[in-house]
Amino acid sequence: MEHSVNSESTDGNGQESVLALGSRLKSPPSELLVSSAFRYELDHQLCLNESMGLVDMAYLLTAIECHIVPRCQGTELLLGVLDLQRRPNDFEPSPEFGDLYTNRENWLDSHTNSTGWLGVGRARRESTTGAFYLKARNEILLLHKSLSRTVKKVLERVEQSATDIMPDYTYLQRAQPTTLGHYLLSFVYPMLRDLSRLQNAYERVNLSTLGCGSTNGSLLKIDRNSVARRLGYSGLCTHTRDAMWQADTPVEVVASLVAIAINLDRLAEDLQIFSTEEFGLIELSDCHARSSKIMPQKKNPFALTYVRQLANHLIGVSTTICASGRTPSGQPDNRQYIYGALPAALTETTNATELMGEVVENLRFDRDRAREAVYSSAAAATSLTEILIKITELDPREAHRLVGHLVSESVNEGIVFSSLTAGTVKNAANCCLGKRLELSEASLKSALNAESTIASHDGIGGAAKASVEEMLLECREIVSQREGWCEVESQRVGASTDKLLREVAEFCR
Amino acid sequence: MEHSVNSESTDGNGQESVLALGSRLKSPPSELLVSSAFRYELDHQLCLNESMGLVDMAYLLTAIECHIVPRCQGTELLLGVLDLQRRPNDFEPSPEFGDLYTNRENWLDSHTNSTGWLGVGRARRESTTGAFYLKARNEILLLHKSLSRTVKKVLERVEQSATDIMPDYTYLQRAQPTTLGHYLLSFVYPMLRDLSRLQNAYERVNLSTLGCGSTNGSLLKIDRNSVARRLGYSGLCTHTRDAMWQADTPVEVVASLVAIAINLDRLAEDLQIFSTEEFGLIELSDCHARSSKIMPQKKNPFALTYVRQLANHLIGVSTTICASGRTPSGQPDNRQYIYGALPAALTETTNATELMGEVVENLRFDRDRAREAVYSSAAAATSLTEILIKITELDPREAHRLVGHLVSESVNEGIVFSSLTAGTVKNAANCCLGKRLELSEASLKSALNAESTIASHDGIGGAAKASVEEMLLECREIVSQREGWCEVESQRVGASTDKLLREVAEFCR
Amino acid sequence: MEHSVNSESTDGNGQESVLALGSRLKSPPSELLVSSAFRYELDHQLCLNESMGLVDMAYLLTAIECHIVPRCQGTELLLGVLDLQRRPNDFEPSPEFGDLYTNRENWLDSHTNSTGWLGVGRARRESTTGAFYLKARNEILLLHKSLSRTVKKVLERVEQSATDIMPDYTYLQRAQPTTLGHYLLSFVYPMLRDLSRLQNAYERVNLSTLGCGSTNGSLLKIDRNSVARRLGYSGLCTHTRDAMWQADTPVEVVASLVAIAINLDRLAEDLQIFSTEEFGLIELSDCHARSSKIMPQKKNPFALTYVRQLANHLIGVSTTICASGRTPSGQPDNRQYIYGALPAALTETTNATELMGEVVENLRFDRDRAREAVYSSAAAATSLTEILIKITELDPREAHRLVGHLVSESVNEGIVFSSLTAGTVKNAANCCLGKRLELSEASLKSALNAESTIASHDGIGGAAKASVEEMLLECREIVSQREGWCEVESQRVGASTDKLLREVAEFCR
Amino acid sequence: MEHSVNSESTDGNGQESVLALGSRLKSPPSELLVSSAFRYELDHQLCLNESMGLVDMAYLLTAIECHIVPRCQGTELLLGVLDLQRRPNDFEPSPEFGDLYTNRENWLDSHTNSTGWLGVGRARRESTTGAFYLKARNEILLLHKSLSRTVKKVLERVEQSATDIMPDYTYLQRAQPTTLGHYLLSFVYPMLRDLSRLQNAYERVNLSTLGCGSTNGSLLKIDRNSVARRLGYSGLCTHTRDAMWQADTPVEVVASLVAIAINLDRLAEDLQIFSTEEFGLIELSDCHARSSKIMPQKKNPFALTYVRQLANHLIGVSTTICASGRTPSGQPDNRQYIYGALPAALTETTNATELMGEVVENLRFDRDRAREAVYSSAAAATSLTEILIKITELDPREAHRLVGHLVSESVNEGIVFSSLTAGTVKNAANCCLGKRLELSEASLKSALNAESTIASHDGIGGAAKASVEEMLLECREIVSQREGWCEVESQRVGASTDKLLREVAEFCR
Repeated sequence: MEHSVNSESTDGNGQESVLALGSRLKSPPSELLVSSAFRYELDHQLCLNESMGLVDMAYLLTAIECHIVPRCQGTELLLGVLDLQRRPNDFEPSPEFGDLYTNRENWLDSHTNSTGWLGVGRARRESTTGAFYLKARNEILLLHKSLSRTVKKVLERVEQSATDIMPDYTYLQRAQPTTLGHYLLSFVYPMLRDLSRLQNAYERVNLSTLGCGSTNGSLLKIDRNSVARRLGYSGLCTHTRDAMWQADTPVEVVASLVAIAINLDRLAEDLQIFSTEEFGLIELSDCHARSSKIMPQKKNPFALTYVRQLANHLIGVSTTICASGRTPSGQPDNRQYIYGALPAALTETTNATELMGEVVENLRFDRDRAREAVYSSAAAATSLTEILIKITELDPREAHRLVGHLVSESVNEGIVFSSLTAGTVKNAANCCLGKRLELSEASLKSALNAESTIASHDGIGGAAKASVEEMLLECREIVSQREGWCEVESQRVGASTDKLLREVAEFCR
Repeated sequence: MEHSVNSESTDGNGQESVLALGSRLKSPPSELLVSSAFRYELDHQLCLNESMGLVDMAYLLTAIECHIVPRCQGTELLLGVLDLQRRPNDFEPSPEFGDLYTNRENWLDSHTNSTGWLGVGRARRESTTGAFYLKARNEILLLHKSLSRTVKKVLERVEQSATDIMPDYTYLQRAQPTTLGHYLLSFVYPMLRDLSRLQNAYERVNLSTLGCGSTNGSLLKIDRNSVARRLGYSGLCTHTRDAMWQADTPVEVVASLVAIAINLDRLAEDLQIFSTEEFGLIELSDCHARSSKIMPQKKNPFALTYVRQLANHLIGVSTTICASGRTPSGQPDNRQYIYGALPAALTETTNATELMGEVVENLRFDRDRAREAVYSSAAAATSLTEILIKITELDPREAHRLVGHLVSESVNEGIVFSSLTAGTVKNAANCCLGKRLELSEASLKSALNAESTIASHDGIGGAAKASVEEMLLECREIVSQREGWCEVESQRVGASTDKLLREVAEFCR
Repeated sequence: MEHSVNSESTDGNGQESVLALGSRLKSPPSELLVSSAFRYELDHQLCLNESMGLVDMAYLLTAIECHIVPRCQGTELLLGVLDLQRRPNDFEPSPEFGDLYTNRENWLDSHTNSTGWLGVGRARRESTTGAFYLKARNEILLLHKSLSRTVKKVLERVEQSATDIMPDYTYLQRAQPTTLGHYLLSFVYPMLRDLSRLQNAYERVNLSTLGCGSTNGSLLKIDRNSVARRLGYSGLCTHTRDAMWQADTPVEVVASLVAIAINLDRLAEDLQIFSTEEFGLIELSDCHARSSKIMPQKKNPFALTYVRQLANHLIGVSTTICASGRTPSGQPDNRQYIYGALPAALTETTNATELMGEVVENLRFDRDRAREAVYSSAAAATSLTEILIKITELDPREAHRLVGHLVSESVNEGIVFSSLTAGTVKNAANCCLGKRLELSEASLKSALNAESTIASHDGIGGAAKASVEEMLLECREIVSQREGWCEVESQRVGASTDKLLREVAEFCR
Repeated sequence: MEHSVNSESTDGNGQESVLALGSRLKSPPSELLVSSAFRYELDHQLCLNESMGLVDMAYLLTAIECHIVPRCQGTELLLGVLDLQRRPNDFEPSPEFGDLYTNRENWLDSHTNSTGWLGVGRARRESTTGAFYLKARNEILLLHKSLSRTVKKVLERVEQSATDIMPDYTYLQRAQPTTLGHYLLSFVYPMLRDLSRLQNAYERVNLSTLGCGSTNGSLLKIDRNSVARRLGYSGLCTHTRDAMWQADTPVEVVASLVAIAINLDRLAEDLQIFSTEEFGLIELSDCHARSSKIMPQKKNPFALTYVRQLANHLIGVSTTICASGRTPSGQPDNRQYIYGALPAALTETTNATELMGEVVENLRFDRDRAREAVYSSAAAATSLTEILIKITELDPREAHRLVGHLVSESVNEGIVFSSLTAGTVKNAANCCLGKRLELSEASLKSALNAESTIASHDGIGGAAKASVEEMLLECREIVSQREGWCEVESQRVGASTDKLLREVAEFCR
C-alpha cells in the first residue's frame, strides 16, 4: 500500500483533476489522507465499476435527449464510457485520484475531450449511489434465484425421506420421534419467508435514485423517468433528498441477509452435530469436507463452518450499517463502507445458500443409526403420555408424572423404554399414583411404536407422511410462484441492460 | 435478589409443582440457578402475562370442543385463567416457581382442581411463544398507528413551510438553498417505507404458531385453525417445528424498528444542531427541553437525546437477537431475552415516534435566520454553475472551476456571494479560463436568488412548491391507505379479543 | 405506565422543583416526554440510588470542610441524605420528577430546608456519573471475587481428573485422546486472563471523577482529593472534562464481561453437547437441569442455556455502549442506557460465573463412556503418525498418508483402530507407499495406547499428568495472587464506605 | 471469481497435495466449496503470509535442533521457506489449493523435495494461528507508536492554546467558557488510557502459542521456549489447548481499537461541527478536505468522515469477533474472519490515529470568532451563580433561579449577558426572590469576564493555565514512559526478527 503521492502530485494529471474541480482548495490532499481515507473509500467502491458505467450511460443518453449535454460532446463522452465498460488495461484505479468516480473521470480525461460533461447536473455521489443501488438490486435477484434453487433441492430430499424416522431434538436432548423429511422441511418455511422478504426489499430498492441535482433538483432538468426506464427500474424514488440519503433500505437488505444466514446456520450447526461419530446420523459428502494436516482420521465438515462464519460476519456488517446510519442527515460518508460491504454480503450469502443446497443434496443419512437412536431412548414418552390421557382417566399431569417415573425406572434398571409392558405401566400407576389403569398391551405397543405415532401426527404441519406431502405441495407452489416472479424480473432487468448497451453502441456509431 | 429457596422448597408447594412434573429429576433447582437463570427468564416474560392468558383461553376452549379436555374440568380451569386475567393481588410471580407459565400454573393450582389439564398436548414453550407472537403482533399495530400519526404531523408542517427557505447541508456544510418543507419531507418518505415494512412484517407474524404438540404434532388432535381464529390470526404458521423455532421473524421485526429509529434519529440529530445558538434555525418547545442544574442559561434539547439513545439501544437489541438465533435449531432458550426485549423495543419505538411527531409539531422555525444563512453564504454557487452551463459556452467543469474561483475570491475579499455582479463574473472568466462570457445581469440575479432557483427545481421530487405539493398529495394518499389497513386490522384483532373473552365468560357461566 | 402529569404539575411540588431550577423554561415537560424519555432515563438510574447517596455524602462533607456549604445547612442536608440512604418508604421515584438526582432532591425538599445546597458547584450529571463509577467499581470487585472462586472450583475438578481420559474434539470430531483435567484446565487460563483484565479495568475505573464544576472547574474550590479519599478511590481522574465524558472505560469494562461470558459459554456449549445421550460423557446435577412439561423423559441442561443467552445479551450491550459513544463529545445523554445496563451486565456476569463454578463442581463424568469413545475411534491416529516419524524412515507426509489409509481401511472393514497389528501396518506401508517399515508390535501398542501417549505429552502445557500438575501449581499461584489483591482492595473499599457512613453519622449528631 | 477446478483437479498437483494429505477423503472439494468457503478463508489469510514465513522458520530451526526434522531435509526446506519469504512471482495463492498454509506447501512442493516435513508435529492451524498472533503483536506496536506521536502533536497544540478562550459545549449548547487547550487536552487523557490498554493487551498477546502438537502436546517433543525466543516472545501461552483456541485476546484487542476509534471520532465529530460556517471556530487544512463535484463553494471535511466511518466499521468487526467466539470450543473455523479482519482493523486504526494527529496539527483556530461566541452568549451564567453563592446570602438554588431569570430577561430584551450591571442583578433579586443583594460592580465584572473566571478554575484538572500546564507535564511524562516502553519492545522484536532471518540464512549456507 505504498503511495508516493506528493512528489509527483503537484504536476501530475490526476491530482490536477482532483484539484481543478475544487478551486476553493489550494493544496492537494495530504499523503496520509490519500493512503488512509481515499484508499479505504476506493477499496469499497471497486465492485461498483460496472454498474457505474451503466448509470453514467443512462444518465448521459437522457441528458443528451434533454439538451442538457450537447450531442457532439455527449457522444464522444459516451464512447469513452463504453470503452471503460470493457475494463481496459490502462484503467488502474488508485486512491491518488480519489474515489471511483474521479478515477473514471481521470481515465476518460486522457481518452476524450468531453469529460467536462460527465458531472453535469449531479454530484459524484449521485453516480456512486446510483451504481450502488443498481448493483444491490441485481444481486438481490441472483440471491433470490439461488435460494429458490436451494429450496427445491431440500424439498427433493424431504420427499425422499418422509418416512425416515429419527429423533427430534430440543436442547440437543432427544425429544420425540420425527422423520428426516419433516425435520428438513422445517428449514424450508423460513426460506420461503426469506424469499418473500427479499422480494419486499427488492421492490423498495427497484426505484431510481437518479436525476436529483445536488439534493433538491436542478436547473438542468433531466427527465428522471427516462433515466429510470433505461436502467430497468420500476419507478422513481420520488423525493430527491430522500433518494440521496436513504438509510433504511440498506438496513432492510442486510437484515434479510442475516435472516437467511441464520436459518442456513441452524441447519449447518445441526448437521455438524449430527455428523459427529457420536450422533452419526448423517455424513457429509467428501467433497464438502476437509482433512486435517495432523490428524489423519479426521473428516472436518468444512462447508458447514463457512456458513456459521458468514452468519457471524453478517451480524457485524449489519451492526456497522446500522451504526453508520445514526448521524445527522446529509452525510455522504455514511456509505463509504456500505458501498462495498453490502454487495459483498449479498454475494457471500448467495454462495452460502448455494453451498447448503449442495450439501443437503449430497449428504448421506444413516437410517439404521437414526432408527436405533429413536428406539434406544425414551423418545416415545410423550406419545405414551398422550395415549394415557386419551384412553385412561389420568389427567395430563398425572400421566406425565407416571411416564416420568417409568422413564426414571427404565434408566435405573437398564430397560429399553420401548419394550415396556402394560403390566409394568399398571404397576407403576398403582405405586406412583395409587390408581388402577385400563391399558391394553396393543394400545401400549402403538404408543411405543414411532412409525405408528408419527403416522398419527397427521394434523396440519405434523410429521405424518400425509401432512408432509401436503406441505410439499404448498411449498412447491410457493417457490414456483416466487421463482416465476424472479424469472420475469431478471429477464426484464437483463433486457433493459442489453437494450441500454445497444442504444449506446448505436448512438455512438 | 435474595431467595431462600432450599430451606422451604422441599415441602413447598411451588417447588413441588416444578418437581412433580419431572419426576426424572430428584432434586430441586439450586438456589443459584433460581436467582440467576430462572430470575432472568421470568423478568423477560412478565410482559407476556396478559397475552398468555388469551392464548391459554383460546387453546383450552378449542381443546374442550375437540374433546381433548373434559368439559367439566376444562370449564373450571378456564374460570381460573379468566380470574388470573384480572391480575389478582395474590399472583406474585417469583423465579422460585420457574418461568411465567409455571408461576401461572402454580397460582391456578391453589385456585382450581383442574390445573392438570393446562399443559395438555403442548409444551410450556408453546404457550409462551404463542403469547410472545400475540404481543408482538398487537404492538406492531400500535406502532404502525403512531407512525401514521407522526407522518401526518410532519406533513402538516411541510405544508406550512413549503416556501420557507433555508440552507440544505451536506457534511454539515451549507450546500444549496432548500425549503423547510422539502427538507422535512425527506424524513417522511422513509417513514412511509417503514409503514410498509411494518405491514410486511405483520403479515408474517400474524399467523398462529399454536397447536403443535411437542414440535411435530400430537396424538391429541387439536383443531389448529380454530385456535388461530379465536386469537384473530389470519392463518397458520403451517409447519409445527417451524412454528416453534422461527428465528427470522424477530430479526425482521427488530430490523424494522432499527430502521424507524435511525430515521427519527437523523432528524433528531439535525434538530439538535439546528437548535444550537450558532445555527439558530429552530427552537424546541420548552416542553421538550430540560434545564441544567448548574448552567442556568441552558436549554437542553432533551427530547432529541432520547431518540438517539433509542437508536443505539435498538442496534444492540438487534445484535443480541441475531446472535441468539445463531445456534443449533431446537434451542428453547434462544428466546429467553427476546420474549421481553422485543415487546419492550416495540413500545419504546412507539414512544419515540410519537415524541418526534410532537417535537416537529411544536418547534419554532426562525425564518429570518434561515434566510440570512442562505444569503450570507455561497449557497447559490451550484445554481450559478448551472446557469452558466445553460446559457454560456462553458462545459460543466469549466463552469465549476469559474464559480469555485468566484467563491474563493468572495471569501478572501469579504464580499457577499449573492451580491456578485455580471462584470465580476466576466472578469473572472477571462482571467481564470481565458474565455469571454455572455451573461446578463438579469440571468445572474435569478441564479443568485434562492427563491427563484428553488421555484425552478420543479421536476419530480424537487424543492419547488409545486413539486412539494405533488409529493404531499402522494404522501397523504399513501399514509391514508396504510392507516386504513391498520384501522381495519386493529378492529379485527380487537374484536376477536373481545369475542374470546365473551366466549370464555359465557362458557363459564 | 400511566402518568397524569399535566393536571397536577403546574402547582405540584415536583414539577415546580424541576421548573424552578430552570427559569429559562416556561412550561413543564410534556406528558409524553415524561412517559418516554424521563421514564427511560429513570429506569436506568434506579440501581444507582445507594451509590448516589455515598457520592453526595462525600461531596457534601468536603464542601462543608472547604467552607463552600455553610456547616448548619450542610449538616441538615447530610442528615436528609443519610435518611434517604435507609430507603424510606415515602421515597418513590417517578419520572414525573425527572431523573434520579431530581427525585432525590424532591424527596429531600419535603424533609429538609437545605436542599438548595445539594447541587452546589456541580452538575447533576456529576453526581450521577460519580454514582455510576462507584457502582461499577464495586461490582467489578464482586465479579473478580466470583471468578476466582469459580477458578478454584474448576482447578479442584482438574486435579481430580488429571488421568481421566476422553477424546479431545475439533469441529466436534474426535481428535486426539486427552484427559478431563487437561480439557477443563483449558478454560482456566482464559479466566486467569479475565482476572487480570478486570484488575486492569478496575485500576482505570478506581479514580474519582468528582469535583469538576460544570466540566472545567469551579470558582467554589472543592478539595477533589478529599472527596476521592472519602470514597476510597486510589486517585483522581485528573482532567475535569475527561472525568465527565469518558467513553473508553465503559467500552473496556463491557468488553471484559464479553470475554468472560464467551469463555464460560464455550464450556457451557461443550457441556451441552457432552451431556447428550449420544455423547454421554457428562451428566449435569439434577439441580442444574429442568424437566419438560410435555416430554417426561427430558432433562434439559437449563443452567447452561443461561450462560449462552448471557453471552449473546452482553454482545448486544457492548454494541449499544460502543454505538452510544460515537457522537460529538459533551453529550450527557450518552449514558442514559449505560447507567443501568453496565451495572446489570456486571451482576449477570457474576451470577453466570458463580453458576458455572457450581455446575463444574457437581457434574458427573462417565469415565467408561469417555474411555470407550477414545478406544472405539481412531483417536490414536496422530500418535501413530508421530511414532512412525520418530522410529521409521517415513517423513511426516508419508506417515500421515499411511495412517489415513489405515483409518479408511479400518472404517471400511469395521476393525477397531486401536487393535491394529504391526503386520497390517507394514502391509499397508508396502501397498500404499511402496516402502518396507521396521515397526515392532510393542512400539505400535504404545502408540495406540491412549494412557501411554498422553503420559508422553509431558512438555510444557501438555496433557501428561506431570504437565497438568505443573500448570495446577502455576494457576493456583496466580489465582491466589489475584485473590489477594481483590481481598485487600475489597477491604479497603469496604472500610472507606463504613468510615464515610460513620463520619456522616458523627457529623450529624 | 471463476474456478475451473474439477476438470483439472484430479490430476492437478495442487488438488493432489490437498487430497494426498487426507486419504480418508475420496473426492476433491466441490467447485462451489472452493469458490465460496476456501476463497473466503484464503482472502482473510493473505495478510499473514510474511508472518507465517517467520513462524515456520522458527519452528523448523527448533525442530532441527531437537532432532525432530533431519538436518538435511530441514535445511532444504528452510531454504524454500526463505525463498518464499521474498515473495516470488510464481507464488500466486489460489483457493483451489486451499488455505494459505496449503498454498505455501504447494509452492514449496514444486521447489523442494522436503516439504513433507513442513507439518511435522503440528496442525496447519498452529502455523496460521501463530502467524496471526505474531502479526497482531507487531501491529499493536505500530499502533502504539502512532498513538504516542498523535498525543504529542495534540499536546503541542494544547500548549499553544492554553489561553485561547472558546465556549465549552454540552448537548452542543454553549455551556461555560473554556480554552482550546483545555478542550483539546480532554482527548489526550483517553489516549493515554488507550496506550496503557494497548500495552496490557500486548502483554497478553506477546506469548508464543507454538509447539502444541494437535492441541495437547506431541510425542515429537519440540522445545517450545526455543521457538518462542526465536520469535521474540516474552514467554509461552502455557496450556496447549488454550494456546490454540483463545477467544478472549482478540475480543480484548478489538475492544481497545474501538475505544481508540471512539475517542478519535468524538474529536472528529466536534471538529466537523466546529468547522461549519455557523460555528466557524476552526478550519481544516485544505489538505484534509475535499471539494464537491457539484457545489463549487464546498470544502468538505473529508478526513474527519473517515474517522467516523472507521469507528462504525470497528464496532461491527467487534460484534463479529465476539459472535464468532460464541460456539463450542475447538472450532478452528472461528478464526476464518478474524485472521484477516483483526490485522486490517489494527492498520486502519493506526492510519486514523496518525491522520487525526495531522489534522489537529494543521487546523486553524479562529480566536476572534471563539471569543465572540463566549461573550455574545450567557456562558458566564454559571460563574455568576457561583460568585453569588460565594459572596451573597443566596443558596445555590436561589442563585441559580436568579441567574436563570437574568438570562431569560437578557434574551427577551436583546441585552448582551456579559454587559449586565450590578443594578440589574439587584433589581432582579428583589423582584424574583424578594431579597436584597450586596454585589459590587467589580465582583460582577470579574464573574462575567471569561478570562478571569477561567484563571480561577485552577484546581486539579481545571481550565486555568496553571492547571493545564501541570497536566501537560503529567501527560508528557506518561507519554514519554509509554513511548520508552514501546521503543524498547519494538527494538527487541525487530532485533529478534533480524536475528531469525540471519540465523536461517547462515544455517542454509
